[in-house]
Amino acid sequence: MNTPIAEIFSQGEEVISGQVADTNAAWLSQQLAQMGFSISRHTAVGDKLQDLADLLDEISLRADLCICTGGLGPTVDDLTAEAVARAFKSPLQLDLIALEQIESYFTKRNRMMADSNRKQAYFPKGSVRLDNAVGSAPGFAIRNKRCWFIFLPGVPSEMRHIFNELVKHQLNNQFVLQRSKLIAIKSIGIGESDLQQKLNDYSLPSTAELGFRATADEVQTKLLFDASTPESEINVCVEQVAKMIGDSVYAIDDLNRSSSDLISVINQLMQDNNYTLSILETISQGLIAAKCIGCDWLQASSYSQSMELASEAESVANALRQRYGSDIVLVQLKKQMDHKEESIDLSNTLLTPSGMFQETVRVTGTISRKQNQAAIKALDLLRRYLQNRCANKKVTIYK
Amino acid sequence: MNTPIAEIFSQGEEVISGQVADTNAAWLSQQLAQMGFSISRHTAVGDKLQDLADLLDEISLRADLCICTGGLGPTVDDLTAEAVARAFKSPLQLDLIALEQIESYFTKRNRMMADSNRKQAYFPKGSVRLDNAVGSAPGFAIRNKRCWFIFLPGVPSEMRHIFNELVKHQLNNQFVLQRSKLIAIKSIGIGESDLQQKLNDYSLPSTAELGFRATADEVQTKLLFDASTPESEINVCVEQVAKMIGDSVYAIDDLNRSSSDLISVINQLMQDNNYTLSILETISQGLIAAKCIGCDWLQASSYSQSMELASEAESVANALRQRYGSDIVLVQLKKQMDHKEESIDLSNTLLTPSGMFQETVRVTGTISRKQNQAAIKALDLLRRYLQNRCANKKVTIYK
Repeated sequence: MNTPIAEIFSQGEEVISGQVADTNAAWLSQQLAQMGFSISRHTAVGDKLQDLADLLDEISLRADLCICTGGLGPTVDDLTAEAVARAFKSPLQLDLIALEQIESYFTKRNRMMADSNRKQAYFPKGSVRLDNAVGSAPGFAIRNKRCWFIFLPGVPSEMRHIFNELVKHQLNNQFVLQRSKLIAIKSIGIGESDLQQKLNDYSLPSTAELGFRATADEVQTKLLFDASTPESEINVCVEQVAKMIGDSVYAIDDLNRSSSDLISVINQLMQDNNYTLSILETISQGLIAAKCIGCDWLQASSYSQSMELASEAESVANALRQRYGSDIVLVQLKKQMDHKEESIDLSNTLLTPSGMFQETVRVTGTISRKQNQAAIKALDLLRRYLQNRCANKKVTIYK
Repeated sequence: MNTPIAEIFSQGEEVISGQVADTNAAWLSQQLAQMGFSISRHTAVGDKLQDLADLLDEISLRADLCICTGGLGPTVDDLTAEAVARAFKSPLQLDLIALEQIESYFTKRNRMMADSNRKQAYFPKGSVRLDNAVGSAPGFAIRNKRCWFIFLPGVPSEMRHIFNELVKHQLNNQFVLQRSKLIAIKSIGIGESDLQQKLNDYSLPSTAELGFRATADEVQTKLLFDASTPESEINVCVEQVAKMIGDSVYAIDDLNRSSSDLISVINQLMQDNNYTLSILETISQGLIAAKCIGCDWLQASSYSQSMELASEAESVANALRQRYGSDIVLVQLKKQMDHKEESIDLSNTLLTPSGMFQETVRVTGTISRKQNQAAIKALDLLRRYLQNRCANKKVTIYK
């Protein structure tokens, strides 16, 4: 069986001029690789009609699938549909259902639809509309020569939504795909090189590959298994690797399903226990609360410039519990006054139904990185408490 | 004079598989655009030799300059030099000076040079070496047909270093370049299509191009002027366009300088006036405070689930002013109770030294989008107050 070849194509002056890095191409490549496509090329072009048409023509001959983002907006520099019409000799036609959807998008928001938005309802003849439930620009799909083309909006949230809701399913029906299986073991609190050292002596099955990926929030230990690997062998391997990493693991993702982040893990545990939370933030300055958006168990959060030292943590926590009646109180305080330092030590205090837990953590880097690290590390203390409490295990506290 | 056409080409499985977004391409594009090149394409391919050679061949015919990153390392998947040799029929030759440099790179670091590193000293016949003062892999440059190719390492810091120290200067000597000027007029509160309609009747100078770019936070109205446009004409045009957009404009960026975001504009105005601020957040749930990271004028911020209705805005604002002694108090309250609605109306109240301002804003979309919109719109009320106060103008309040 031949692996189908996919290309990614991005349209927009903001990509080609370097104002934004092309994160859409990276995200789509990850999705397609996981589904079993072989990705051969990314291309980005600006808003010159002939450049666009030429490129579409080239891709028609050498790929089985091409996903294109951008250029579906209402303005004069949004040329994708026109370029497709020219390259594939498929004249633009008004799609009345699309027009209705665009109109209702504006009506629902109490806004007038500008005349220029009508343009977004015109698609090349022979194309299939891809409804956009979260924005004004619908996408579309069309075949030309060897290649099946899918056109999606350039706004990342809309692009991802349409891909997840509509495109993924269609591609799985349309192509014969053999997916290798990618498992991501997500951890907080251990660096990439320390993880690598922990796993040095472990001998992986011959059908598996090991990789790491560090982000600002976490490190992922990635295990990629051939399609031929038996499920039982995968499970044993993942379990062993997770055990070697230890309590820093907060989630294990089968990346074919939707992935879990720290907040979604905490959200589930808080709901299961029917707990409520109130927070006092210092260095994270509102970011813990902001990350908990949509979580009804967060009762209150406050930041105050004047309250910054760790000596009073316990009484502050008790006062918050009394004021809001929260089951859990998280208090983040500084251990030293000057926050212009290269590194800051923070004291996180967690008041819970089963007692008080305290740990000191260090944050470094730019002020934004310190802010994010402070939020993540405080939330991770809460996560360890919740996960271990549910498993009746002792909570790991970092020194 | 014709503007020289440049392309960017990235080699590496980590780009093509989506593990990293191609930030090298974005950075190089910005540099080249500012120098006066017209960038027509970005392409990324993996580590298949024939794919690489084919692409180099294509680019030779259609661009005047191509900057390529990646694939210069010591391992088997680093194929760039070999692909060049094949595509341009220029066999690889050992460069003794390069070999010496690579050896001394390792000697200086007390490390043994692996045999595989010798490979990095082989360049296609006819190429010019580009010394790498900060890493082990030198780059090189070579002409093929119409195009001047420059090959740089994929490690961003090394790539940027060689570009800044060697390449920039060479390109300025080698090409006749005229820098065009890009101005971005940044606004909040008007959509892309409404902006276009506002500007429909305005006749731009013939040397200018108009474009738009919408992000989650703002819309940029972009004016690109030919190098031939007199400075005075640029200034008149920018001023007129900004005036037509009106009070929604919060900043005008000359993109050759560093760009200003909403927070940096507010930060400057707060500092200039020596003002302090305290905030009550509802829907934005800590995000206003989190966005103000590094701003010493933010005295306090709180979020509480129970305080959600707009009727009490004035007394809440007065209580906050009394408690923290802040010059300005921003209170964001909901106008209806159920926040699971598709759209939420918020009442923003700004208590200032020159009186109280209130406006109602609507936020829509996913819960995260609502959160961000709520934060941006509250901050923008503060921005309008500060900008207009300094200009002794009336504050525009949206109905």
